[in-house]
Amino acid sequence: MLAGGVGGARFLLGVRAWARRAAPDALGSDAEITAIVNTGDDMWLTGLRITPDLDSIMYALAGVNDTERGWGRVGESDRVAAELRAWDAGWPWFTLGDLDLGAHIARTGWLREGVPLSAVVARLTARWPLGVRLLPATDDEAETHVMTASGTLHFQEWWTRHRAAIPALGFEQRGVSSAAPAPGVTAALAEADVVLVAPSNPVVSIGTILGIPGIRSALATTAAPVVGVSGIIGGAVVRGMADACLSAIGVETAADAVARWYGARNSGGVLDAWLMAEEDAALVPAVESAGIRSAAAPLWLRGDDTSADVVAAALALAGIR
Amino acid sequence: MLAGGVGGARFLLGVRAWARRAAPDALGSDAEITAIVNTGDDMWLTGLRITPDLDSIMYALAGVNDTERGWGRVGESDRVAAELRAWDAGWPWFTLGDLDLGAHIARTGWLREGVPLSAVVARLTARWPLGVRLLPATDDEAETHVMTASGTLHFQEWWTRHRAAIPALGFEQRGVSSAAPAPGVTAALAEADVVLVAPSNPVVSIGTILGIPGIRSALATTAAPVVGVSGIIGGAVVRGMADACLSAIGVETAADAVARWYGARNSGGVLDAWLMAEEDAALVPAVESAGIRSAAAPLWLRGDDTSADVVAAALALAGIR
Repeated sequence: MLAGGVGGARFLLGVRAWARRAAPDALGSDAEITAIVNTGDDMWLTGLRITPDLDSIMYALAGVNDTERGWGRVGESDRVAAELRAWDAGWPWFTLGDLDLGAHIARTGWLREGVPLSAVVARLTARWPLGVRLLPATDDEAETHVMTASGTLHFQEWWTRHRAAIPALGFEQRGVSSAAPAPGVTAALAEADVVLVAPSNPVVSIGTILGIPGIRSALATTAAPVVGVSGIIGGAVVRGMADACLSAIGVETAADAVARWYGARNSGGVLDAWLMAEEDAALVPAVESAGIRSAAAPLWLRGDDTSADVVAAALALAGIR
Repeated sequence: MLAGGVGGARFLLGVRAWARRAAPDALGSDAEITAIVNTGDDMWLTGLRITPDLDSIMYALAGVNDTERGWGRVGESDRVAAELRAWDAGWPWFTLGDLDLGAHIARTGWLREGVPLSAVVARLTARWPLGVRLLPATDDEAETHVMTASGTLHFQEWWTRHRAAIPALGFEQRGVSSAAPAPGVTAALAEADVVLVAPSNPVVSIGTILGIPGIRSALATTAAPVVGVSGIIGGAVVRGMADACLSAIGVETAADAVARWYGARNSGGVLDAWLMAEEDAALVPAVESAGIRSAAAPLWLRGDDTSADVVAAALALAGIR
């Protein structure tokens, strides 16, 4: 599975739930699940390496995420952040919670020792029985920047500080041309039974993963079917501000438009199939005419069980039942 | 003043209290106090730059130190440290408290941006009206290591983890030969009315400051008298484990032995005068025979007022009343 942060985490909980309830003769309850996670939102902040999407997914799978607030750790406190504010250090609009800082500091210490990010993620995730292997898309630093009329911002500044309200003219993945897929990424794609594209932000989450040289070609050549799930329902994004990202690259905020932007695998794109919401059932022919198998199903992720149903519908499009 | 950590902080509180109560015609209530602080105990720990002596002094002068525990911030908590332990990250015997981490993270962020340590210290200390200017002895990294029969350890590992219980064969300041005094250090010594040497660890606090090229010669040439205060009372160290450090360099744990090891300024050493405890009054002639003016006075630092009395006694030895 290719995944961004919070949206990717919800879908991934569904994948895990699906595997746990699936009969052993489908992909089965002993299915191996690998998530290839966007690292374009990562950044250095006051000397610490922050990896928001990897953390969101790790916390959600571990069951230590704050489901009310929608991000970070449950039971979080801000003792350290209050100190940082007293010194005007860091970004006041990007709060580093105390529990969250544990991960940031452990990660940073290991990175400074020369441990690659993928190995850092393995150490961090080993704390809990996640049932999913998390891989950063790349061990290299290739951070997304946002071009606006008044200059270029780091993605986090645009997204978290400005809530994507400054019109984006485009996105730039700095350092991406020399980035390589993290160890295990292309092998996971090559050996997969099925590749799922989560209903994450198509531009700055999935698109950023696809921008890393080698990942798009691994998707092109894998024997596994590639099935995407729409994060747009009835012409609106389910969560986040993906519409601002789609506008910036000239793509309509519509489930069929995103599928056509991903493109059909048999003509140089990434998708064999695309699952849309039942609200968008009328768009199925438009997607199919682009060479992408399509269907519509209830797509609201309201918990592990409904998410597993969505996963089952996506897998059905790939012939897995 | 040259100072180490907790012991230096107590003495420095006395210097500040002395200045506040002094008549304007002595050095006076508007005396400018500069502390040149040991940085040999500093270290990188899980990607963070830790400066224990500078922090101990900053917290004590700001009144936010934990006087019961004897180190760190009052009202401290360990939420982050518990996370780090869950990941086995860092050194479990060196606890990074939540409030304390605020300073470590702010410092590290600024250092990573290229701000020199002395400027970082200025930013951190600007939060409180300390009444004392803190200068790191050097902006360069020159950390003390301890040679033992079973190998070399970082000073903090020897001191904090092993409580200095492994016999030290000697000390090594890695990188000291290319270290330079921090901006302001030699000027402070040259322009001082009096230089005080705190009753800190003579080997790994004061000795480490003196090991930085340029500081010893600035002491040699200043017009100001240099007055030291003994941290050894009646043949025992007041606090800490300085005896283990003195043994390692073949110096007896005795107030007169330390004075002679510092040496008389008029014969290549650093001291013009040396204040010892009343318990050590019998040692005054031995110190004076080494060319160092000496006297004995009550040396227990039991609070700002008694500490100010000790400072007054030290200044009296320099002719300041």
